[in-house]
Amino acid sequence: MVGHAFMGRAHSQAWRTVGPFFGPPLTPVMAALAGRDAGRAAAAARTLGWASSESDWKQLLRRDDVEIVDVCTPGDAHAEIAVAALEAGKHVLCEKPLANSVAEAEAMAAAAERARARGVRSMVGFNYRRVPAVSLARRLVAQGRVGTVRHIRAQYLQDWLTDPRSPFTWRLDRDKAGTGALGDIGAHIIDTAQFITGHALAGVSAVMGTFVPERPLPGGGTAEVTVDDAALFVGRTDGGALASFEATRMATGRKNALRIEVSGSSGALAFDLESMNELWFYDGAQDAETAGFRRIVVTEPVHPYAGRWWPPGHLLGYEHTFTHQMADFLAAIAGGTDPSPSFADGLRVQRVLAAVEASAASGGWADVEGSL
Amino acid sequence: MVGHAFMGRAHSQAWRTVGPFFGPPLTPVMAALAGRDAGRAAAAARTLGWASSESDWKQLLRRDDVEIVDVCTPGDAHAEIAVAALEAGKHVLCEKPLANSVAEAEAMAAAAERARARGVRSMVGFNYRRVPAVSLARRLVAQGRVGTVRHIRAQYLQDWLTDPRSPFTWRLDRDKAGTGALGDIGAHIIDTAQFITGHALAGVSAVMGTFVPERPLPGGGTAEVTVDDAALFVGRTDGGALASFEATRMATGRKNALRIEVSGSSGALAFDLESMNELWFYDGAQDAETAGFRRIVVTEPVHPYAGRWWPPGHLLGYEHTFTHQMADFLAAIAGGTDPSPSFADGLRVQRVLAAVEASAASGGWADVEGSL
Amino acid sequence: MVGHAFMGRAHSQAWRTVGPFFGPPLTPVMAALAGRDAGRAAAAARTLGWASSESDWKQLLRRDDVEIVDVCTPGDAHAEIAVAALEAGKHVLCEKPLANSVAEAEAMAAAAERARARGVRSMVGFNYRRVPAVSLARRLVAQGRVGTVRHIRAQYLQDWLTDPRSPFTWRLDRDKAGTGALGDIGAHIIDTAQFITGHALAGVSAVMGTFVPERPLPGGGTAEVTVDDAALFVGRTDGGALASFEATRMATGRKNALRIEVSGSSGALAFDLESMNELWFYDGAQDAETAGFRRIVVTEPVHPYAGRWWPPGHLLGYEHTFTHQMADFLAAIAGGTDPSPSFADGLRVQRVLAAVEASAASGGWADVEGSL
Amino acid sequence: MVGHAFMGRAHSQAWRTVGPFFGPPLTPVMAALAGRDAGRAAAAARTLGWASSESDWKQLLRRDDVEIVDVCTPGDAHAEIAVAALEAGKHVLCEKPLANSVAEAEAMAAAAERARARGVRSMVGFNYRRVPAVSLARRLVAQGRVGTVRHIRAQYLQDWLTDPRSPFTWRLDRDKAGTGALGDIGAHIIDTAQFITGHALAGVSAVMGTFVPERPLPGGGTAEVTVDDAALFVGRTDGGALASFEATRMATGRKNALRIEVSGSSGALAFDLESMNELWFYDGAQDAETAGFRRIVVTEPVHPYAGRWWPPGHLLGYEHTFTHQMADFLAAIAGGTDPSPSFADGLRVQRVLAAVEASAASGGWADVEGSL
Repeated sequence: MVGHAFMGRAHSQAWRTVGPFFGPPLTPVMAALAGRDAGRAAAAARTLGWASSESDWKQLLRRDDVEIVDVCTPGDAHAEIAVAALEAGKHVLCEKPLANSVAEAEAMAAAAERARARGVRSMVGFNYRRVPAVSLARRLVAQGRVGTVRHIRAQYLQDWLTDPRSPFTWRLDRDKAGTGALGDIGAHIIDTAQFITGHALAGVSAVMGTFVPERPLPGGGTAEVTVDDAALFVGRTDGGALASFEATRMATGRKNALRIEVSGSSGALAFDLESMNELWFYDGAQDAETAGFRRIVVTEPVHPYAGRWWPPGHLLGYEHTFTHQMADFLAAIAGGTDPSPSFADGLRVQRVLAAVEASAASGGWADVEGSL
Repeated sequence: MVGHAFMGRAHSQAWRTVGPFFGPPLTPVMAALAGRDAGRAAAAARTLGWASSESDWKQLLRRDDVEIVDVCTPGDAHAEIAVAALEAGKHVLCEKPLANSVAEAEAMAAAAERARARGVRSMVGFNYRRVPAVSLARRLVAQGRVGTVRHIRAQYLQDWLTDPRSPFTWRLDRDKAGTGALGDIGAHIIDTAQFITGHALAGVSAVMGTFVPERPLPGGGTAEVTVDDAALFVGRTDGGALASFEATRMATGRKNALRIEVSGSSGALAFDLESMNELWFYDGAQDAETAGFRRIVVTEPVHPYAGRWWPPGHLLGYEHTFTHQMADFLAAIAGGTDPSPSFADGLRVQRVLAAVEASAASGGWADVEGSL
Repeated sequence: MVGHAFMGRAHSQAWRTVGPFFGPPLTPVMAALAGRDAGRAAAAARTLGWASSESDWKQLLRRDDVEIVDVCTPGDAHAEIAVAALEAGKHVLCEKPLANSVAEAEAMAAAAERARARGVRSMVGFNYRRVPAVSLARRLVAQGRVGTVRHIRAQYLQDWLTDPRSPFTWRLDRDKAGTGALGDIGAHIIDTAQFITGHALAGVSAVMGTFVPERPLPGGGTAEVTVDDAALFVGRTDGGALASFEATRMATGRKNALRIEVSGSSGALAFDLESMNELWFYDGAQDAETAGFRRIVVTEPVHPYAGRWWPPGHLLGYEHTFTHQMADFLAAIAGGTDPSPSFADGLRVQRVLAAVEASAASGGWADVEGSL
Repeated sequence: MVGHAFMGRAHSQAWRTVGPFFGPPLTPVMAALAGRDAGRAAAAARTLGWASSESDWKQLLRRDDVEIVDVCTPGDAHAEIAVAALEAGKHVLCEKPLANSVAEAEAMAAAAERARARGVRSMVGFNYRRVPAVSLARRLVAQGRVGTVRHIRAQYLQDWLTDPRSPFTWRLDRDKAGTGALGDIGAHIIDTAQFITGHALAGVSAVMGTFVPERPLPGGGTAEVTVDDAALFVGRTDGGALASFEATRMATGRKNALRIEVSGSSGALAFDLESMNELWFYDGAQDAETAGFRRIVVTEPVHPYAGRWWPPGHLLGYEHTFTHQMADFLAAIAGGTDPSPSFADGLRVQRVLAAVEASAASGGWADVEGSL
């Protein structure tokens, strides 16, 4: 694993947990953690349960006991590490967004395609696909239970930048992070919405903004915020739906509200990550007298992933999505199949991000590259 | 009153009820109802409690016992009736949207301004301003309890056109209705959002669509739907907020979900007309340990309008908004003050509607006429 | 109508509204209002829309233009007025609880039975039966959609006495009110639960308490509170269900939360008067993957009463329950059928109240008189 | 650890996870798992991550590498194992309910008291105390933010026995389980309610019932259900509150709804385990205009336990409660302090269970032994 901050902690817990609960065909061994500072990497390895540490990620590629490279760094390093790892024959799990630019993402998708021919697998870490309620939503759409999708309304609302005294971090630096709310959390709702509906965004019209243009540095002084605090857009999908998206870190009081609603010709779905064990479903086939949105507590044995954990009504949390991700990745490697979402899926999201940026800059409509 | 369909019924109930509950300075007398078909107008007058009926609305203007004209017709007749009534010295309450075009709305606002100089009052029927929870929301914003408004997310979701067999009506005819979801329900969220926040939309970028282009006529055959089923847009306000709006009649399972969220620099608000007695408020000044959105049941004596009705916790319904409207209109007439929302307010909404249509047609950004 | 306080206002609004919306076979004329103080009765008649007033309710019985007597006084006067009115050949609508004692209620039920033989009708005002969601709940149970009822959990939570400085009123005086929370709001949940399920309470085990034993008098000084602030009991029904009831005026933050849940062998229902337009229904026949409580917005044309009012999603409020009550009462009088709930139904509730008091006093189980 | 069924899995996950997230002063080593069947115990040890296995729990007491014994067996074995382990100088964590009878629980509490004198620690596994929202609730009550507690309403609703075809298990056998819903889930709400409020139940009046008296055996035939399907009671606390409790496995549609509401003289709290990351708080000190129950998402750094995990808004699940339990237990052992809840706390719950059974059997009030 490369990186040991927030995502590194989440991934470590998933690697540790996937064995006892999913009994995967391949048993993961937490071999080595890489981080730029040798001392901090070693300390993180001890805390997070890795057997060894490296101060240069390239060392991981040379080690025979490393078969999977898990990329948890900021976005600017994704392309270099992931491409090198794939070329070294390591399976790669890369955090989202896939890259900081379409060009990088294209290079990565091409590398993944080449590696695939040699049986080397790759996957991008859109973990919210594996919230059981989100997986169930996709299943219901695929089964036709909402009919033709007509509307998507997707929001990812956080509030950790509401306070102007909140300090500057790498996530606010365009060079490191690419974009702000757009790439960090907007990427999640774009991928999740496309995953649930099976539609791809074809064109968008956007506004973006930065409400607090300068923030204090931890060591004193201030730094310019070079990314967006919020990005909003409307769009059309290749399946004829009209969609509305909003990603913001300025939604006071909303801590982690990834909300998606899908309106179809004969049904509807609603989800909120702040109540992540629930899926709301309106079944147009219900009798008129009792029709209504039903609150499904997605913890039944018939529900995706849920049967591996606890009895009905016993909730899962945030980190479980990563465990599910590792379980599916290991199963794909063992089974010689393509894990999903692929780097190509990651590229598709990257192209939507680029279209949003282009539209916000021009004030006009922007088609998503590569869509119909 | 002119017109006796859905709005006519709602207004009649309000005129009947305003006396006992609000004890207004002027006591309304339900003198006459006008409708094009003499027989149906007479029958409606009996059912709805009007003392007499007319088959030509112009007769109302000639009657001395008519001091107020309440316009409840489809939008294409608003301008002619309202302007004539104002010129005849009658106070006018006109249903929303004010008109079917900016030109008509401008003429009406000008007529209202002229009439005002003669002490003749006018008001446009954005009744949702007078939901107690909405009035309270505006009050809290005005008191500074959410700080600077940064985001507006507004949706008006209905589903009565989801079924393609749902018949053609005047509301689907561009000549009668002007636009579809946009003018009918989009106008409500535009006005309500502007009312709550005190911001005005300055520019928009929109998509509109018609999912069912043809519908059955009650008498057989079909007719082309010449208005939108749905309109979505993002925009910027004159106060620097980023906003997202969606009006649709295709949101399966949502019956009447006018939902508005406001995110400010130090607080937030959320409202849903399907739970119209509740306002959700996040107070950024709360201690961190217990901060959360609070569900205010807006039925306390200190809340707008509520003290006139029942004890705390006893809910109000849809029609009460009209009673509140009549109470405030009568108070303004009696007090010689300007009722709100004015025809000028209605014109401002009309200009947003026009900008949305222009943007959806061009695929580009459209400034709202008359805004900064 | 006798009485012109809170209930008098609510009933007046209902008599005024029932005509336009329900077009009943008999058109009510608001002839006369009776109240002990001549001046206040006359003023109330003007405000509430009654044509005349009387300072002695006995005058109403002598008037030929009075065909219905609507009893809205405190409970200690119910028996005398209702029995006299029935004997005078007037149809009687009497507020709940039917009386302050079982003996009074028995006398009233007997008088009702005698009057019925002469075509004179009577009804007790358990208005919450006519919340559309409650009527729908009963309909679903009757249709077998929850199977055999196994559990009832009913609560009526208010908080208007939480503050010890809240003044003394007749509702806190045992002589006037009979009991406190038990008879005032406990009677409602007992009746509503029995109505929905079709079960009758057979025996109970109760605790009651008064948290604030003395309260200030409006004119100075204090008075002893001689009724309960809260009454809780568990019980068994004649249908084999286990039930839990709580009525309290001390539930800080709950304004008017009449909450009922029914668990059946193959389904369940939940209702909260603070969201009175919603019924939650769990249908055990749903497929396992999408099973969940569904939120029914009870405003569809197929729902009880709702079709008489507004389009789907347009909410009704507290006072509408009274309008529904009047509509059904008028229909029964015109049709020569027995309105429901009858005085006998009121007596049954009274017997449960008596059993609760007996159990709380003795600390033991108390059977409900007259049940199996 | 003794036992490797549902609770064994949950505890194993907690022992595995406590290190990386809580960095406890003592690092747990998962040394040995005991189970009656040697083969199944060995397999479970492998799956759940234990280094060795034993087919006799007594072997654990003889091993020097075992310092803590974690008792996850059915209730009938708790007393023997726990007492022996304490006498052997092992710290003991024992699942709830502490025992199947008051006599056993008394013996255990006495053994715990003796062991304590020698520095040997014991704790009973009421894990729901360590849901962050529940811990926060207790903190708010202790800070006086709800005032004097007047009402407790507690329900633990499950539905896994709704279907009469659901098979017989040890949980339905009085000899193994002691009681049914009462001891299994009723014990949880009794402990949780007492924990939050600081009150102890002083007396109760109860009803219990078994709706399905016979159930199929997995191998064919049927067995008699000798425990309760549901237990309901009202009661008084030593602090003067009136309380209502219901534990049932027959609440169709409720999967794991442990719901607790507390009404105090100046505030209120509500919790539902099906939304376990939320606490609802009504603060009586709020201004009247914005007073309302607030939904606290209990994932902030200032909240109990939450800061050890993920950023705000990232939810925790069922199993985290066990991790918190292990963290606190290890901290108490290392610090030489008494962990909580103690065996004495477990005994207090056992005495309430006994009073409930006694009351249900006699139909009368039953005082809780040892209370005031």
